[in-house]
Amino acid sequence: MEEKSDKTEQSGSVHLTKSIRCIVKLGGAAITCKNELETINEENLKMVSSQLRQSMIAGSSSGKVLGMDWSKKSGEPEISFTVDDFEDQPVAESSPFVVVHGAGSFGHFQASKSGVHKGGWNRPLVKAGFVATRISVTNLNLEIVRALAREGIPSIGMSPFACGWSTSERNVASADLSVVTKAIESGLVPVLHGDAVLDDLLDCTILSGDVIISHLAAHLKPDYVVFLTDVLGVYDRPPSEPNAILLREIAVAEDGSWSVVRPTLQDMNTRVKTSVAAHDTTGGMMTKIGEAAMIAKLGINVYIVKAATSHALRALSGELQGEFPDDWLGTLIRFSSK
Amino acid sequence: MEEKSDKTEQSGSVHLTKSIRCIVKLGGAAITCKNELETINEENLKMVSSQLRQSMIAGSSSGKVLGMDWSKKSGEPEISFTVDDFEDQPVAESSPFVVVHGAGSFGHFQASKSGVHKGGWNRPLVKAGFVATRISVTNLNLEIVRALAREGIPSIGMSPFACGWSTSERNVASADLSVVTKAIESGLVPVLHGDAVLDDLLDCTILSGDVIISHLAAHLKPDYVVFLTDVLGVYDRPPSEPNAILLREIAVAEDGSWSVVRPTLQDMNTRVKTSVAAHDTTGGMMTKIGEAAMIAKLGINVYIVKAATSHALRALSGELQGEFPDDWLGTLIRFSSK
Repeated sequence: MEEKSDKTEQSGSVHLTKSIRCIVKLGGAAITCKNELETINEENLKMVSSQLRQSMIAGSSSGKVLGMDWSKKSGEPEISFTVDDFEDQPVAESSPFVVVHGAGSFGHFQASKSGVHKGGWNRPLVKAGFVATRISVTNLNLEIVRALAREGIPSIGMSPFACGWSTSERNVASADLSVVTKAIESGLVPVLHGDAVLDDLLDCTILSGDVIISHLAAHLKPDYVVFLTDVLGVYDRPPSEPNAILLREIAVAEDGSWSVVRPTLQDMNTRVKTSVAAHDTTGGMMTKIGEAAMIAKLGINVYIVKAATSHALRALSGELQGEFPDDWLGTLIRFSSK
Repeated sequence: MEEKSDKTEQSGSVHLTKSIRCIVKLGGAAITCKNELETINEENLKMVSSQLRQSMIAGSSSGKVLGMDWSKKSGEPEISFTVDDFEDQPVAESSPFVVVHGAGSFGHFQASKSGVHKGGWNRPLVKAGFVATRISVTNLNLEIVRALAREGIPSIGMSPFACGWSTSERNVASADLSVVTKAIESGLVPVLHGDAVLDDLLDCTILSGDVIISHLAAHLKPDYVVFLTDVLGVYDRPPSEPNAILLREIAVAEDGSWSVVRPTLQDMNTRVKTSVAAHDTTGGMMTKIGEAAMIAKLGINVYIVKAATSHALRALSGELQGEFPDDWLGTLIRFSSK
């Protein structure tokens, strides 16, 4: 127990010589095919990776991409790779980003069949499900690290379990951020993910990517946070419903309450609250706004935007910091001292 | 720097309520096809995993194996899996093992092309090689975790990089063993591997599986250590040479010097030293005996044995502790106070 409180303190006093520019969440729904088990949405993942490169590495939108995934391609006996390509190249500095991804169609089957989130080592099914869930989510992590590396991003997979994240009744109890910060100091891009972890009281549980983002944001204080999802942003009701309205700007007050600033319909705030409450029985928008609001309260802008679109690229590149162009589609959740 | 000395201290004071039975090294040459890039020796890996199950889980040599890799098989849309199989089962306790594997034909290409072991972030090739090496070795780690899980072993991949291992001029400088010990306390089987890590002085380097084993053995004090390799054990000269003699028992004295106890040829010790020195320019036997001797000096028996053989199973199961049957083929390296 002493060890743990040590660690929590440690994560509370993170010192970085570089400030983190952005923490990005790659939503599970945006990078996997939700209705196909363990299937990556290759097209989206490639576009997301390319946009991340353009946002992280200055001047990289033109010029040759030097891939960092030198794995053998299936069916080929050799690895094609030229040392000279790298020797000619100046050292490209990538600005400090942290990537966190969800599980989408990976891990969900294994976790839900076994009830890992409820814990209980005394059930063989739970322990087996814990192992199976970790295999599935680390498999996805490897594929995402590879996709980013192919775009020349020095990405490094870091499983929260292995990094020492654990929970106490599902709340983060320990999270040694020193490995994450060391990687950032070395110019690498940590790639974390929702994971199965040990829990003090439940034995084990699921630590979601969103909880990881909140914890990282609170301790690493990035300039901004971007959630890449499969819809344009947050709506006043499920986006599949007719007349659903995209909420473009939400202001969060000191006490955590929030209100819609754009669009400026007089009755919007009430309407949102009602429809949100109804919608939220299925988990969803209210939770998402709530978590984003926690981050915004720290003075950090949160952009919720559709992955692999020009709107996503604008949010990732930081061009929206300080201005809010009318043609940008997405949801900005920001702090308001008023 | 303060953080690091903290961590080193931490790894020096590991407290476990269970004692570790065995640390096993799966040699790269035993589980991969050495001359085929990124290719697993599936047959050997399956046999090794099965023998590990029999050694770890009491009574598991008979009865149904409940697999813990519930990944979708390629070409199949669904995951085949029955919850009921697990519910009927009593909780099988696996005895505390730690698995460490080498890289074999994974990682080697990427590391040697880029010179990761020499370090130097200022060269773009080194940083790219660091990323590429980690992708390759974590890919192998995932496949080994899956092979073990398919045999019902609750295996958990733990990359040394993510677990906070780092070096200072290639010596282990920090290694937070708390995640490893927590996993063991929870009845899980940690699976570590040779990895690319950060180095205080060189920026980065390669941390070999053998160095990891030595460090773990010194701090976790297992009952015994088993190295699974692709030859029967340690020979007096390269085993491919005619008349090569298998060294069956080596005694290590307090001062680290060692001598061959079996076979009892009078001139063996001298002969070994000569041939070893000649052979060792290519790396190899002398290094292996030296590292094993470091572990043996702690009073821990080290068995070097051919993977996937009956000799390996006998070493893994612990049946050789306290006796040395004539029909066992392998090399025992043990402490001798004489």
